[in-house]
Amino acid sequence: MQTIHVIKIGGALINNNPILLSLLKDLAKIKAPFVLVHGGGRQVDEWLEKLGLKPNMVDGRRITDKYTLDLAVMNYAGLLNKRIVAQLQAAGRNALGLTGADMNSITAHQRVHPDIDFGYVGDIDSVDGEVFYSLCQNGITPVCCAITHDMQGQLLNTNADTIACEVAIALAKKSSTQLWYAFEKPGVLRDVEDPNSAIGTLTAELYAEMLENGSIHTGMKPKLHNCFKALESGVDSVNICHANGLRSIPNSSGTQVTLS
Amino acid sequence: MQTIHVIKIGGALINNNPILLSLLKDLAKIKAPFVLVHGGGRQVDEWLEKLGLKPNMVDGRRITDKYTLDLAVMNYAGLLNKRIVAQLQAAGRNALGLTGADMNSITAHQRVHPDIDFGYVGDIDSVDGEVFYSLCQNGITPVCCAITHDMQGQLLNTNADTIACEVAIALAKKSSTQLWYAFEKPGVLRDVEDPNSAIGTLTAELYAEMLENGSIHTGMKPKLHNCFKALESGVDSVNICHANGLRSIPNSSGTQVTLS
Repeated sequence: MQTIHVIKIGGALINNNPILLSLLKDLAKIKAPFVLVHGGGRQVDEWLEKLGLKPNMVDGRRITDKYTLDLAVMNYAGLLNKRIVAQLQAAGRNALGLTGADMNSITAHQRVHPDIDFGYVGDIDSVDGEVFYSLCQNGITPVCCAITHDMQGQLLNTNADTIACEVAIALAKKSSTQLWYAFEKPGVLRDVEDPNSAIGTLTAELYAEMLENGSIHTGMKPKLHNCFKALESGVDSVNICHANGLRSIPNSSGTQVTLS
Repeated sequence: MQTIHVIKIGGALINNNPILLSLLKDLAKIKAPFVLVHGGGRQVDEWLEKLGLKPNMVDGRRITDKYTLDLAVMNYAGLLNKRIVAQLQAAGRNALGLTGADMNSITAHQRVHPDIDFGYVGDIDSVDGEVFYSLCQNGITPVCCAITHDMQGQLLNTNADTIACEVAIALAKKSSTQLWYAFEKPGVLRDVEDPNSAIGTLTAELYAEMLENGSIHTGMKPKLHNCFKALESGVDSVNICHANGLRSIPNSSGTQVTLS
């Protein structure tokens, strides 16, 4: 079996339709099998606004109440996931859209937190690597949105970066696996204000140093946590790169994250 | 291979959550493999209302404009489809939600009509019976919503009764197949006002007679057209029944439609 790539796309890539379309055309050309994982972008906020509602925030953190969950399922599993699948099919790539409930591919439990009730947010319990592996074996590209389920009938909103990480770890038990986080920047920046400051190789040592001097910004911290977890759990390589960098797959692009 | 059942659920079954949940628990117990097809109920109208919009109607017929299509995809392929899948999983049945774009299972073209532009409504070109057959063979229950695609990247709103009919016809080339249309009434009624007037067997001859004397009401006409088309195209049996009648599968229930 060839190397399987797990590719997460998010951020501004998803909020802009022409950019997304052009990216999907590039992805459809990748010769190797891959699993695509997408976040949700700003769609849910836009819908809350249309409906005259405000995001439910507690201590600056978003709470996924019943209504927000419904909008997340409608947007991520509905509109966005199916548009991506239809565009991949149009570009000649046989794709299948999935939530964690589909074929029981990703199970989760509602987040338990001592102080905050996050609502319908799911933390992953298990990924069925066999589902993703055999779809890839059969020439089908799984397209995962950021929705999982608890096996009791409850859908849950789940971080897409973490889904990509856990899917890659599950696949690494069956195949060589590379993980890619693609967004609108050229990689992990030394200086978040300077797009020319992308780091070529980010080792665990450098990461510890940057954490200490405060040069890793908030959003990048959980992403990098996922990167190192993947590498420690058998994933062969992890890259954080600009969407254009995915054209070079399987060759490294943007910031390559390494243990040493 | 066992007989494969294609079960369409729609109408009031879908608009009422407790009824839908109880129905899905019944369906999960069916021993034979089946494909579930669901319509969308009143969700899109409810959402248009929430957003202060009116359904786009021309000559009393609904037009699927861009906005209505998005709401249909969000509701049918998103919220409703994924809730059904999660509930089937909770009841122990391994399910997979599909639009026609997923695995290219159902392709369609935008409806061509001499007088009316129906917008993003799809008429089916082909169903990949192999996709549905092999999922069933692998113990997976496909759950189809009423969204197809044109292979050019465009999603299309498609009649769920017709999807059920065409999926059954495609499966009939590979397996014995039974088609079930389930709703909130006990079958085809001789007198639409009298729920005790369900017809046990509706032959093509009786149908022609009822059409002539006007006792087939509007909504039932296209459904019966699909029933006879399925029978003429190799489907072994077709029933129109109350949702409770599905418990008796594979035994006939409600109105059995027959060629002679």
